[in-house]
Amino acid sequence: MAGWAKRQVCGVLLDITGVLYDSGPEGGTAISGSVEAVKRLKASSLPVRFCTNETQCTKRMLVDKLQHLGFTMSENEVFPPAPAMCHILKQRNLRPHLLVHPDALPDFSACDRSNPNCVVIGDAADEFSYKNVNDVFRLLVSLDKPVLFSLGKGKYYKENNKLCLDVGPYMKALEYACDLEAEVVGKPSAAFFEAAVQDMGVEPGQVVMVGDDVVNDVGGAQACGIRGVLVRTGKYRPQDEKHPTVNPDGIVDDLAQAIDSLLEGR
Amino acid sequence: MAGWAKRQVCGVLLDITGVLYDSGPEGGTAISGSVEAVKRLKASSLPVRFCTNETQCTKRMLVDKLQHLGFTMSENEVFPPAPAMCHILKQRNLRPHLLVHPDALPDFSACDRSNPNCVVIGDAADEFSYKNVNDVFRLLVSLDKPVLFSLGKGKYYKENNKLCLDVGPYMKALEYACDLEAEVVGKPSAAFFEAAVQDMGVEPGQVVMVGDDVVNDVGGAQACGIRGVLVRTGKYRPQDEKHPTVNPDGIVDDLAQAIDSLLEGR
Repeated sequence: MAGWAKRQVCGVLLDITGVLYDSGPEGGTAISGSVEAVKRLKASSLPVRFCTNETQCTKRMLVDKLQHLGFTMSENEVFPPAPAMCHILKQRNLRPHLLVHPDALPDFSACDRSNPNCVVIGDAADEFSYKNVNDVFRLLVSLDKPVLFSLGKGKYYKENNKLCLDVGPYMKALEYACDLEAEVVGKPSAAFFEAAVQDMGVEPGQVVMVGDDVVNDVGGAQACGIRGVLVRTGKYRPQDEKHPTVNPDGIVDDLAQAIDSLLEGR
Repeated sequence: MAGWAKRQVCGVLLDITGVLYDSGPEGGTAISGSVEAVKRLKASSLPVRFCTNETQCTKRMLVDKLQHLGFTMSENEVFPPAPAMCHILKQRNLRPHLLVHPDALPDFSACDRSNPNCVVIGDAADEFSYKNVNDVFRLLVSLDKPVLFSLGKGKYYKENNKLCLDVGPYMKALEYACDLEAEVVGKPSAAFFEAAVQDMGVEPGQVVMVGDDVVNDVGGAQACGIRGVLVRTGKYRPQDEKHPTVNPDGIVDDLAQAIDSLLEGR
């Protein structure tokens, strides 16, 4: 049995894109064996939360898409950054200028966006035009206390079998231009992992996170005391197994293999 | 007399944008007193080189524009990054994929751009679309030994009285996305300053650089043993005078004041 699955597991966190499905035209494609793997996991008594940095659509749209692909999940098992972000904005009395994907806007409909005093960037894809990034830059340098939130800090993801720049590089661009440090909401922020773990009512040491991003999924989880397992699907590249700073607790071919090892360990 | 002008000066380096003129519609506007200041400087026996990170047009177009604004200068006194870049590409047998301003392309006409094995980015402005930046990223991650050249690493410049993102933030974005370090051609690279100083046949310690960019002009020059003088024109902002790492040898209101102090010191 895989070493990482030997210690007691009382809860599971799963990344979505690149683990459950590959994004692409018409909602993308389920990764072979993943639909059944989620079914087996849910048939066990183990609680599961889907911990994603997906910000190209609303939480509702994401759940609909995954259910359509055959996955069994409820909306309250899904943890994307947008709801966490809205909560923080409200708590801190901040009014955001948003540079996010147009399909994600409805998740921010409750936010007061008048006279913005902070910036929120997500995986905006084609919306990352020079004009839009410049507008964000100008707003930030005009603020007495500039605040930049980034919904994740991923470098890239895979779509239609091609790598695509994620929000992270744009976060770095703005940090450099404005001499500031962004606040990351989403993976790998500890607060984000901890909220999902607490929601399952378990301890981080009893939890396994499965993802295709060696830094944000695996490294981020490990920094919170969660076991991090890397899958060889999605944006995985062979060099991820020799990452200079992150050493996964386990490496598996795909989610199916991860869930098999995990259930076998019980 | 200003302290920085007391020691012997045998050559002068001048930044262009924000020191000689402010860019804007119809070729921009000469900064008050700058045309006459350059005239006074050239009437003295002091050699001068115009050391610029301008990459939004060819060297020829830049000289034409400045002559049209009234400045006295010859093409061989102007040091922009593009000719230096072409020289390096040829030396190292590299074929570039270019992400530069369309008006700058003619300066690269002699480069072999087939089957690219490196990337050159300049101040591409609106060409910094998500698609174009993504294409650069995909090419870099596809190369065995990815090489990224950045024509300068400025954070922003001023145009039509508004701050605009320069090439630097995009360099940082790509460095982060591809896990690499770009090679900067242009200010603040020491090789770039040194070439201009050598061209005047003087020693760095005998030279004064005048610029509006506290890091790239002033700090870059100082790192080569050149005195760095900051002007309060162009993209200058008051906080530049309290910069955490760069302490200018002198701070003047504008180029006219810098040249007055300098000539007074002779």
